[in-house]
Amino acid sequence: MPTYSTNMRLKFPILALILEIITIVLYALFVVYDTGDDKGHGDHHEKSNQTESPMTLYPMFQDVHVMIFIGFGFLMTFLKRYGFTSVGVNLLLAAFGLQWGLLLQNVWHMHGGKIRVSIDRMINADFSTATVLISFGAVLGKTSPVQLLIMTLLEITTFCINEYLVVEILGVSDVGASMTIHAFGAYFGLSVARVLYRPGLRNGHDNDGSVYHSDLFAMIGTVYLWMFWPSFNSAIATPGDHQLRAVVNTYFSLAACALAAYATSSLVEKKGKLDMVHIQNATLAGGVAVGTCADMDIQPFGAMLIGITAGIISTVGFKFLTPILASKLGIQDTCGVHNLHGMPGILGGVAGILAAALKRKEGVSPTYQAAGLASSLGFALVGGLITGLIMKIPFLGQPPDQNCFDDSIYWEV
Amino acid sequence: MPTYSTNMRLKFPILALILEIITIVLYALFVVYDTGDDKGHGDHHEKSNQTESPMTLYPMFQDVHVMIFIGFGFLMTFLKRYGFTSVGVNLLLAAFGLQWGLLLQNVWHMHGGKIRVSIDRMINADFSTATVLISFGAVLGKTSPVQLLIMTLLEITTFCINEYLVVEILGVSDVGASMTIHAFGAYFGLSVARVLYRPGLRNGHDNDGSVYHSDLFAMIGTVYLWMFWPSFNSAIATPGDHQLRAVVNTYFSLAACALAAYATSSLVEKKGKLDMVHIQNATLAGGVAVGTCADMDIQPFGAMLIGITAGIISTVGFKFLTPILASKLGIQDTCGVHNLHGMPGILGGVAGILAAALKRKEGVSPTYQAAGLASSLGFALVGGLITGLIMKIPFLGQPPDQNCFDDSIYWEV
Amino acid sequence: MPTYSTNMRLKFPILALILEIITIVLYALFVVYDTGDDKGHGDHHEKSNQTESPMTLYPMFQDVHVMIFIGFGFLMTFLKRYGFTSVGVNLLLAAFGLQWGLLLQNVWHMHGGKIRVSIDRMINADFSTATVLISFGAVLGKTSPVQLLIMTLLEITTFCINEYLVVEILGVSDVGASMTIHAFGAYFGLSVARVLYRPGLRNGHDNDGSVYHSDLFAMIGTVYLWMFWPSFNSAIATPGDHQLRAVVNTYFSLAACALAAYATSSLVEKKGKLDMVHIQNATLAGGVAVGTCADMDIQPFGAMLIGITAGIISTVGFKFLTPILASKLGIQDTCGVHNLHGMPGILGGVAGILAAALKRKEGVSPTYQAAGLASSLGFALVGGLITGLIMKIPFLGQPPDQNCFDDSIYWEV
Repeated sequence: MPTYSTNMRLKFPILALILEIITIVLYALFVVYDTGDDKGHGDHHEKSNQTESPMTLYPMFQDVHVMIFIGFGFLMTFLKRYGFTSVGVNLLLAAFGLQWGLLLQNVWHMHGGKIRVSIDRMINADFSTATVLISFGAVLGKTSPVQLLIMTLLEITTFCINEYLVVEILGVSDVGASMTIHAFGAYFGLSVARVLYRPGLRNGHDNDGSVYHSDLFAMIGTVYLWMFWPSFNSAIATPGDHQLRAVVNTYFSLAACALAAYATSSLVEKKGKLDMVHIQNATLAGGVAVGTCADMDIQPFGAMLIGITAGIISTVGFKFLTPILASKLGIQDTCGVHNLHGMPGILGGVAGILAAALKRKEGVSPTYQAAGLASSLGFALVGGLITGLIMKIPFLGQPPDQNCFDDSIYWEV
Repeated sequence: MPTYSTNMRLKFPILALILEIITIVLYALFVVYDTGDDKGHGDHHEKSNQTESPMTLYPMFQDVHVMIFIGFGFLMTFLKRYGFTSVGVNLLLAAFGLQWGLLLQNVWHMHGGKIRVSIDRMINADFSTATVLISFGAVLGKTSPVQLLIMTLLEITTFCINEYLVVEILGVSDVGASMTIHAFGAYFGLSVARVLYRPGLRNGHDNDGSVYHSDLFAMIGTVYLWMFWPSFNSAIATPGDHQLRAVVNTYFSLAACALAAYATSSLVEKKGKLDMVHIQNATLAGGVAVGTCADMDIQPFGAMLIGITAGIISTVGFKFLTPILASKLGIQDTCGVHNLHGMPGILGGVAGILAAALKRKEGVSPTYQAAGLASSLGFALVGGLITGLIMKIPFLGQPPDQNCFDDSIYWEV
Repeated sequence: MPTYSTNMRLKFPILALILEIITIVLYALFVVYDTGDDKGHGDHHEKSNQTESPMTLYPMFQDVHVMIFIGFGFLMTFLKRYGFTSVGVNLLLAAFGLQWGLLLQNVWHMHGGKIRVSIDRMINADFSTATVLISFGAVLGKTSPVQLLIMTLLEITTFCINEYLVVEILGVSDVGASMTIHAFGAYFGLSVARVLYRPGLRNGHDNDGSVYHSDLFAMIGTVYLWMFWPSFNSAIATPGDHQLRAVVNTYFSLAACALAAYATSSLVEKKGKLDMVHIQNATLAGGVAVGTCADMDIQPFGAMLIGITAGIISTVGFKFLTPILASKLGIQDTCGVHNLHGMPGILGGVAGILAAALKRKEGVSPTYQAAGLASSLGFALVGGLITGLIMKIPFLGQPPDQNCFDDSIYWEV
């Protein structure tokens, strides 16, 4: 029987403060405001009239910000006794993650030894935290805040390496990050979940379920993610027509996906009833799956085909695949991130390969797109494996089986 | 005794998928991105510096999007056992409606046989769904998802015909759509509700009421609608001063309306207590009522007079008129849309006639404004009547009286 | 034993309607749209390319609007039986306050005898209501709507005088209003709370606490305030680099503050558990504390140092200082505004003095900054004292001790 040391009195505050202090020291050394001085080399011709104001992307940033903190946070409040952790630890991890992500993402983009903070770099920093919040969904209810802070540190580090390799070195097109964020975050989390497999939860847990009002709180998260996903997929697109395309494609992919998720949910349930788990999650799969091609010339009906496919796959995954993953592979995926981010993320990557083969965006090669997908999955699985092994150290405060899915072990309730 | 066939197992998925597939086929044939190529004829002089970027209206679009999906969705969660349907079916109907609305609204605006999607057309598509969500409020708790999808199809079709007639042919000014959306949606829904009259609910229903937390969820909807209504009323206004006016007028109308709604609520209740039903709804009537004149030169105090009037009328309607409509006219209006959208919508139309007579906007004729109001009411009542008769077909799965206002008939709870 | 006259039947509606009617008359006399005619004197050189459109600041305005109505409103829903008042009366007070604030703030800025409404004046009007909503937190649960409307009237009036003196006369720099809004609102409210001291609540009250779901509703408020605080601190900054700085500084201050609040909460609680009260509030202290210096050249790491300090001070305040204020000084601060707005507001003022001394912004004098802080505290304490004495008049409907923290005394529940 494993030992548990779930008292966070010293280890959590010390870890959090040390991480924050190291971060501040690094910021003091390397991070300054972007004053626009290093521009003007005639790059980004298309951007010219957009970038006059450093604030142009600010509304997009705030939409993404809402997705990260309200969207992901409340989506996970569906568990009946785990809402504090869902929304509260989501805030903690994202607040640390964005600081860490901004540093690591820009190590390769320093000017005069300095990282210059602009709105688009804040958007990218927010993006980097999404990987962690996706993985958080896979291990929700079964991990301590200390474990999760360590996962944040390691996962964002791994993400930044893979993203640099895929986007900068290979030149892969992944504007809405189906591969580098969604598939990556999902398979990283599933890999961690596999390492942390708990035989004691094979037959379920009383608290691993929702009550009526917790499902409504979760719908706040769902609806915000659904609404603002066009911003997620277009925020860092080339301004002008490409950005408009990314918005339009995502808007229609999500709309078609919603119809498909509702239809499939009713089809697979006894008596044709709708299942909240499907509605909360599978309606969003269209946003994930259209990510890679969002700024490509796939036309609205192409986006809708991607959306409808994602909605069906995701719902079917929740119904039939999740139980199999748990029972056969030992992967206990609390929120079903495999269905919302994993498979739709791969679908997005594959759609991108196809769109590249059909020359739907200039200068994009199907071979490199495939390499980008493979790299993202590889980094995720290996990174998750190593991270999971580290998280398994008993000192880090993993809860015993009977206290899983219960806020009261780490919160005053 | 009527027969009920509330099992949705096949009919709902088949209907939803057929509608989506037909939509995708039509999009493949007719819908493309707006690449801005068809501009440049010197039109929209006033717009010139605004429309350089295709994304200028995007923040407005997102505000409207939040009103449609969070605002309307959560406003209806006040019922104690009907939150899943309120926010969930709201998402379903709006997701289908915006696809259908974008097609039908632009049949008359094709260029080279194609509909070109831009942000302002997405805003209009979102708008078209608002009519359905208003009508949804009138029949909430008493209809099946299949019935509601059919209502969506028919109502948006009717709306697009009336809107084309009123705005394009008659040249009526209705920037915030008091007439073409609010009055139309309300009377369409009331007409449907009349056809679906249930004598068995004359004496109320145990589930037709709120509990403490469901009222708080509803306040999320109320407050979002209240905050973003200036965006609703100004999103498609002429950029520049007209758009600013629409924002300012709506801001002050709503502020004055809130005071009036609180005051009237306290005045009509025993012991001077406030009633959540009034606060959730009547505080918003000022947004509805100022819609038609929002971009006219009525000055802030004029907007406040409209707002205060709307707040009083709406609250009084909830208190005294709704019970009479139910008992004398057989109109069981679950959310009281007559008080929030119906009467304030007519008030908005009348205010527009008056403002036109007072020459508060160039080129607007009071006669045509009156014709626009009459047309909207006529299409709504007749369209709602026909739609209601179709919805009454027992095969469409209307719930029996005892299962009304209860999510568990169509949802796994 | 005091007498109570808590029936609001006539006094509340009459007061609300009289205030609204007086406001409308004043608007009819003095308030018009800003048509941009009074510009063009070559002022605001830096602004030139920003202000072409009167709608440039609109997305910022909506962020601030969300903070006022959702942020403040839901933050206070943590009490188990007081959610209707928290979010409902918050709406009422802010709706009246913004009308009153817009008038009084611009008495000194009339052109041709008229106040011209533009988006930036609407932002400032929203800001003025924040003072009241902060003070509302100090007296939450212990006051009637009539008392609170009177407090709104008096506090906004006092605020406008102090703001004019500090910002216009003394030329103090306070872009995020740490001093003029946060410290002012907190100490005004604490001063009122002192006057309204209730010995009968010395030993607590059954309803003065949260339940599980009410804490989740409160997190909606917390997270929105946390996300949009960069808009609050930058909305009225000089466009361009200063505005970007204000966004960046606030973003990082809040991120560092969140880590500090979580760490400190765990450190001061038995068994290292997190306390929802701290998480809901102290995570925001970094936004308050960085307000005054937000647009100064303090660099990201400087902002993070302010944030981490604020997070620690605020959490420690909740744990140790609030009980002492109640027991020794007779200040019963329901929401702990002293910890979220009071001390962090002073910290912000002091940081501004220091930054001015270090010449982090041109033309800012540490002496005047100190005078601005002193003035804000002085006006708050004296204004709160007088307002509290007026609010104590029994006719205004203060609830008896046993009905405190209970919606049912003023609402149909």
